[in-house]
Amino acid sequence: MPKEAVVIGAVRSFDARYQLPIGAGSDAVHANPEYCFAVALLKTKAGLTGCGIVLTLGAGNRIVCELIDLLAPALVGREIEELMASFGEVSHRLADHPHLRWLGPHKGAVHLALASITNACFDLWAKARGLPLWRLLLDLTPEQVVRLLDVSYLDDMLVEAGCLDILRQQQASRSERSLLLKSGYPGYDTSVGWFEYDDHRVREGTLRALDAGFRAFKLKVGSCDSQRDLRRAHLLRELVGADCLVMLDANQQWTLPQAIESCQALRSISPYWIEEPTHPDDVAGHRKLREAIAPTRIALGEHVPNRVMFKNFMEAGALDFVQVDCTRVAGISEFLTVSLMARKVGLPAVPHVGDMGQIHQHLVLFNHIALGHPVVFLEYIPHLRQHFVNPARVEGGVYITPQDPGGSSDLVELSQGG
Amino acid sequence: MPKEAVVIGAVRSFDARYQLPIGAGSDAVHANPEYCFAVALLKTKAGLTGCGIVLTLGAGNRIVCELIDLLAPALVGREIEELMASFGEVSHRLADHPHLRWLGPHKGAVHLALASITNACFDLWAKARGLPLWRLLLDLTPEQVVRLLDVSYLDDMLVEAGCLDILRQQQASRSERSLLLKSGYPGYDTSVGWFEYDDHRVREGTLRALDAGFRAFKLKVGSCDSQRDLRRAHLLRELVGADCLVMLDANQQWTLPQAIESCQALRSISPYWIEEPTHPDDVAGHRKLREAIAPTRIALGEHVPNRVMFKNFMEAGALDFVQVDCTRVAGISEFLTVSLMARKVGLPAVPHVGDMGQIHQHLVLFNHIALGHPVVFLEYIPHLRQHFVNPARVEGGVYITPQDPGGSSDLVELSQGG
Repeated sequence: MPKEAVVIGAVRSFDARYQLPIGAGSDAVHANPEYCFAVALLKTKAGLTGCGIVLTLGAGNRIVCELIDLLAPALVGREIEELMASFGEVSHRLADHPHLRWLGPHKGAVHLALASITNACFDLWAKARGLPLWRLLLDLTPEQVVRLLDVSYLDDMLVEAGCLDILRQQQASRSERSLLLKSGYPGYDTSVGWFEYDDHRVREGTLRALDAGFRAFKLKVGSCDSQRDLRRAHLLRELVGADCLVMLDANQQWTLPQAIESCQALRSISPYWIEEPTHPDDVAGHRKLREAIAPTRIALGEHVPNRVMFKNFMEAGALDFVQVDCTRVAGISEFLTVSLMARKVGLPAVPHVGDMGQIHQHLVLFNHIALGHPVVFLEYIPHLRQHFVNPARVEGGVYITPQDPGGSSDLVELSQGG
Repeated sequence: MPKEAVVIGAVRSFDARYQLPIGAGSDAVHANPEYCFAVALLKTKAGLTGCGIVLTLGAGNRIVCELIDLLAPALVGREIEELMASFGEVSHRLADHPHLRWLGPHKGAVHLALASITNACFDLWAKARGLPLWRLLLDLTPEQVVRLLDVSYLDDMLVEAGCLDILRQQQASRSERSLLLKSGYPGYDTSVGWFEYDDHRVREGTLRALDAGFRAFKLKVGSCDSQRDLRRAHLLRELVGADCLVMLDANQQWTLPQAIESCQALRSISPYWIEEPTHPDDVAGHRKLREAIAPTRIALGEHVPNRVMFKNFMEAGALDFVQVDCTRVAGISEFLTVSLMARKVGLPAVPHVGDMGQIHQHLVLFNHIALGHPVVFLEYIPHLRQHFVNPARVEGGVYITPQDPGGSSDLVELSQGG
């Protein structure tokens, strides 16, 4: 740890926008996306910069930046170690801004802004300690981890004592799980099966990904013509063979009756999961769907905004994979809270990567080693690699443990300016 | 109906802000609010202006205005009768803006912007026909009403045919319920019991409201010191006597265990309902609370953002009063959808009034006369009366049927400029 105090001296937002190759990023609901980051920057006099990111798809990125500018000034003058020693309280207070909370609460653009700010705090903290984020998190005591969290409104599922129990119980077996730091863990490739890709492009991308070592792939479904979904799914399954994993993603396109019918039809390709089959607020709908299509499994979370909604999904038995995203919930802090809940109820946390996997590659290591999450698996989307100072290293389809200080979210265009 | 086509020629937003008397508007969670409207204005060449409003509490109002400016231009050039002939589709398309939906979907600041725009469309429509909004709505055929709605994702509770059934079934008995147009219906006064009001001020306000004819009153609870809640609740009950209604409102302040304890303690004053006891996303929590405190009844909805969340609350048996607000859900259109669902499951719809009751005074008439909702009751908050061109008339504690064309949301400061 540094001896000098690291004090947040200035805060600002940055509206980062990146064009995608034609068709990339498309799904049944989100056409022609631009991948944008609403960036929160926390600068210190010593020249460190904490950089937080959340994803948006174009229009609206500026809105989140403006909300960062409204919320972040509350952190100016705070010393980072002191701030992170009780970040749960900080997060709670920011999330309950007496005026801005009306625009949520704990959801929508304001919550995205809080996520970006929170991610910047964790990044600055790790840089101040000169550690990669995963190392910093693994070095914390259970008590220190819990003080990072706001577990309010979770009383009927998880209170602070329950978090401590999980963290303490897992300590004895940490060393065996730490082997993961050397082995890395599998990524899955989402970029082979974008919605607007034709069969030729799916085939080429899949063969290339297979060649690069990937053994898990995602395909976008939710076509108006359900035969198109079936054809593409069979194409992908045949290309990769029976031993690879194929995940299907409808991006909320189906109504409940459509989802039941489509999931039953798509069972023929043995999907590892079907993702976001219907409206992301519909807990009861997902529960009914899960019962109707068992044993086909449901993944969701990229549009579940906060721990309270996740609690409801988990408690209802409405999902099989918890795709919590630290660029959707209130940043790394609420991500950890949701991961603890998932661990408590025995569900795997397999993040959605609004950050392109940059931050989540750290968090998955923490989830496995410190929380004992058995499933270690992470989405991989390569399109923005060249825009990160330290792009995630995925070799042979495996995420390699990052070693640079921080949370790996620094952007090239912001670093060049100093 | 006018013979000339009424075409939307220009759209803009307006950031309207009003200071409140000290302490007014305060609750356990929202301190020092400023009442602000993010206003959507739709202007026609003929000089008509559709004016839509949604409430915010200060910081963030500009954000909603910017989102109005992003969404509303899609309506330029549309003729109002043609637009409203299939407004459900229009609403669905606006709500699924392929980029902005990432900031929700169907919740948060973007959804507030859609609400304001929608309310402006209905206001313009009623002005174009020269009718008060309630009259316009009552004149529609069941088929026309249904085409105003987006019932997607509600398949397991209410489809279009079910909406038609309700509307048609109620037609025969409409005339008896139309007596309400002459009698008016009771309002309840929220302004007597703001959180920061001391006992003296609660007493003075209550005596004044009693004198003005009110027989129903709301008190803000959720104090850190639960004895304060009890004392104030007993004070109010003693002031108004056993025959008046007293509603208590915690504004989401309590955790589930706190809510159970507080609601049980407050049962001693026989509240008509307890409002927003805990987190507004916690369907399962409210269900458990409702079971724990029965027969005390729960009201909520002012922070429930859309029909899908309302479906989940209703289906779970998690609430007793549906406080849907057309300035929170996607405007009058989604308000009507939620009202139909409430009717289907036999729950009363008693709106929260982010519009200060201006628009809802029309919608409550429609709910009773066209949908057969038996409970007719509406919140009344007087603080912004002087800022409306046609402030709601509440006499003897009774809402008097408005007669001016439109939805009663025109603001004085915007009218003076022409």
